[in-house]
Amino acid sequence: MSVARFVHDTLPQRVRFASGEAAGQLAEEIKELGVSRLMVVAARKWLAEQVAGGLPVAVWHHDVVMHVPVETAVRAREVAAEHDVDALVCIGGGSATGLAKAVALTTGLPIVAVPTTYAGSEATNVWGITEEGRKTTGVDDRVLPRTVVYDASLTRTLPVGMSVASGLNALAHCVDSMWAPRADPIDAALAEEGIRALNAGLPQVFADPVGLAGREQTLYGAYLSAVAFASAGSGLHHKICHVLGGMFDLPHAQTHAIVLPHVLAFNGPDAPEAERRIAAAFGAPSANEGLAALRSEVDAPVALRDYAMPEHGIETAAGAVLAAVPAGNPAPVTLVSLTALLRAAWEGDLPR
Amino acid sequence: MSVARFVHDTLPQRVRFASGEAAGQLAEEIKELGVSRLMVVAARKWLAEQVAGGLPVAVWHHDVVMHVPVETAVRAREVAAEHDVDALVCIGGGSATGLAKAVALTTGLPIVAVPTTYAGSEATNVWGITEEGRKTTGVDDRVLPRTVVYDASLTRTLPVGMSVASGLNALAHCVDSMWAPRADPIDAALAEEGIRALNAGLPQVFADPVGLAGREQTLYGAYLSAVAFASAGSGLHHKICHVLGGMFDLPHAQTHAIVLPHVLAFNGPDAPEAERRIAAAFGAPSANEGLAALRSEVDAPVALRDYAMPEHGIETAAGAVLAAVPAGNPAPVTLVSLTALLRAAWEGDLPR
Repeated sequence: MSVARFVHDTLPQRVRFASGEAAGQLAEEIKELGVSRLMVVAARKWLAEQVAGGLPVAVWHHDVVMHVPVETAVRAREVAAEHDVDALVCIGGGSATGLAKAVALTTGLPIVAVPTTYAGSEATNVWGITEEGRKTTGVDDRVLPRTVVYDASLTRTLPVGMSVASGLNALAHCVDSMWAPRADPIDAALAEEGIRALNAGLPQVFADPVGLAGREQTLYGAYLSAVAFASAGSGLHHKICHVLGGMFDLPHAQTHAIVLPHVLAFNGPDAPEAERRIAAAFGAPSANEGLAALRSEVDAPVALRDYAMPEHGIETAAGAVLAAVPAGNPAPVTLVSLTALLRAAWEGDLPR
Repeated sequence: MSVARFVHDTLPQRVRFASGEAAGQLAEEIKELGVSRLMVVAARKWLAEQVAGGLPVAVWHHDVVMHVPVETAVRAREVAAEHDVDALVCIGGGSATGLAKAVALTTGLPIVAVPTTYAGSEATNVWGITEEGRKTTGVDDRVLPRTVVYDASLTRTLPVGMSVASGLNALAHCVDSMWAPRADPIDAALAEEGIRALNAGLPQVFADPVGLAGREQTLYGAYLSAVAFASAGSGLHHKICHVLGGMFDLPHAQTHAIVLPHVLAFNGPDAPEAERRIAAAFGAPSANEGLAALRSEVDAPVALRDYAMPEHGIETAAGAVLAAVPAGNPAPVTLVSLTALLRAAWEGDLPR
């Protein structure tokens, strides 16, 4: 492996991994932090009470909206100020975490996150706020949760289809972390471990959605994928998905799940070390075969056309992606090769 | 892999990995930190000047002593106060890093470390100070260097024999991190990557001590080993080496190099996941075979008797280790099995 030259920032965070113990682990953490006026951010009231019911909560906040609209963020900040809270506890998916981050961004309040999906936002210092339909994102260490309480039993309510798409989205973070602009050997090692966990976990989630073992592996893999991705930055895969999502309003996780095998097949031959690592993580002869086997096991979504992306969009999207190709992408990218890649993803013509 | 239940603290640190660029990378970091009155801690004056010559140095401090005697620590703290420094730069091996940590412990001054060996202290929050022949160690986040500048070219002056012993010491950190009391899957993943790097690097260092490629891999592996070990804590291997070192004044790195294959053979059969990971990292059919191949390639030290440990010490040491066996060691430990292990290490009777 090449370790010649890189800069890597390791961010401070505690993770408490304990299935079925969210309430107890959270209580311990709150005690250790020495905070006593919590703002609990959670869309689901019953879940919030189940997890944080025994804590010194100053205010329960259930006004959670997808993509963190700026009005929602402003209201949450006002609530935090009115109630003089000294810490934020978010319980839920990316939207709850995102809202807590929006409050931490301006207040510096510490966050303890209890995620219930495989989105991974809880393990990054990236925030996002949407204003007039445009999402602004930024990086600020103040929004990185101090502690994450991972209780895999809380993810059991996530439906199988959504679990698979979300897990493959995490897998895409891992794969892209191998060659993104700031990718380094540490990111690659964490991403490799993430692929191993997701490859072990997702088939179990698919076969037995309420079983804990698969949920644990998938949640662990999602955590690693977020750590690696936050450090490595967006590679070609994420640029493509970002363009497609913005242009055609495609569902986030499904788009990632569909596009991933095409980017892997595209970059793999020019990234032998990443190819070797990914294949090893899958326990497969090649990275492509490993991903194909996993995708078929979990009945992964196949074609962008199934999500109502118009065929004439392929060309437009290819042009937009070309303008955003990340520095140092292993394979050379041209309009022709991008168009072919997008057409294959649109048709569901999977690389062999 | 089992991810059922663990708590993992990730510590904040930047690493800048760039061979031949120590001076430039350090200058960039000092600028980013916004500090302007440095105390440079380094035993070797010429090396300190080579690396930090262009920086705003308030005081150069060359009074560095092995194991950080308390008088040395007190003097260094006085010097820091007298010169009103705002950051510490340590350049050297574990002794220079250790002294900077002793100053940071009481002053909270940030450290930028430029290591020149494979000791790994620069990547941990562990400090140690020696008083009247007894070393006191402790854990404090204030002593964790903010940034480490890894320049593999600076390790080229470390003699081959010392490089091999020190690299195998790092390898022992990795192996012990698989089953130490606080070991978790994240530690294991980092340790696995560390073994891979050390296994790639050490034979190159042995064959070509001034070549950079092997030095880079070894330095990278040593960094990972320290991160994993600081998180996982001391396993059986380190308890054994600690007892032996204290009783018979054996050389640190060599003791680790000799004892490691015996502990691996002892625990391996009861730690199938660790065994699988270690074997994979070595690219060998089994962990034992992988380690044996590496050891023979680098002409590793073989027997404790060669370092003047008395034969009658085996029994005494076994008793002392038995009293300190870490919780959760994979294989059950008895006085009989420990005595056999120590005798084999003393005789150099390597496990097959």
